Amino acid sequence: MSFPTATTKTELERGQVLAPQFDANGLVAAVATHADTGEVLMLAWMNAEALALTVRTRQAHYFSRSRNALWKKGESSGQVQDVEEIRVDCDQDAVWIKVRPRGDGGACHVGFRSCFYRVVTADGTLQEEPDPPNMHTHG
Amino acid sequence: MSFPTATTKTELERGQVLAPQFDANGLVAAVATHADTGEVLMLAWMNAEALALTVRTRQAHYFSRSRNALWKKGESSGQVQDVEEIRVDCDQDAVWIKVRPRGDGGACHVGFRSCFYRVVTADGTLQEEPDPPNMHTHG
Repeated sequence: MSFPTATTKTELERGQVLAPQFDANGLVAAVATHADTGEVLMLAWMNAEALALTVRTRQAHYFSRSRNALWKKGESSGQVQDVEEIRVDCDQDAVWIKVRPRGDGGACHVGFRSCFYRVVTADGTLQEEPDPPNMHTHG
Repeated sequence: MSFPTATTKTELERGQVLAPQFDANGLVAAVATHADTGEVLMLAWMNAEALALTVRTRQAHYFSRSRNALWKKGESSGQVQDVEEIRVDCDQDAVWIKVRPRGDGGACHVGFRSCFYRVVTADGTLQEEPDPPNMHTHG
């Protein structure tokens, strides 16, 4: 699976062609927010195959840097992400997907709804925030 | 400027110590959302210095991969980002900051409020979305 390369800045920034700028490892950053709450759920990576599959199937696919493998989100956890919208940024090296997680509604392997469950306080320490009581968590 | 390294998975995932896992280039991904609207404004990178400065000054600092330099957001554009909250994800290789942009209220050098001004449509082409009329843009 491959994407075209933008040859001018205008094509890259204002063009109608998806021409992702993959990094040296062949990846773009992908941020997933909850389509209903807007909360940032996770930040992960996509290679060309993961991005193409996400666009085509409307379910989130990522590339696991630690496992060095394509990864359909929710394949083992049940937290499949139905994609409502896909956006790309100005220089096409990051995508933003708005998703609705299936299963228990969460996105994080630790058991929180969002991977960003810790606030960095003013003194630099981390404070866990409990999930809102009306949201499901697993784990 | 340096941060400690988490020595166990529990420290990394449930600890109260900010122990970022910088990549081979010394960077973590940073996603900035608008503190009021929740919109994803931009995705950028922070090295240890940028992260430490962001925590300490409560204004967003990034590391420019193209310029290979620390970068205080808004230094030239006026789009300084006042930071309302900083979060770190489960494996501490990504941060989420909630910001309020100064200046014209935007975050993107192309002139849109958010860098993610293009939707990837079902057929894979890109569609620019106009900024809401009540929001300021520059450029």
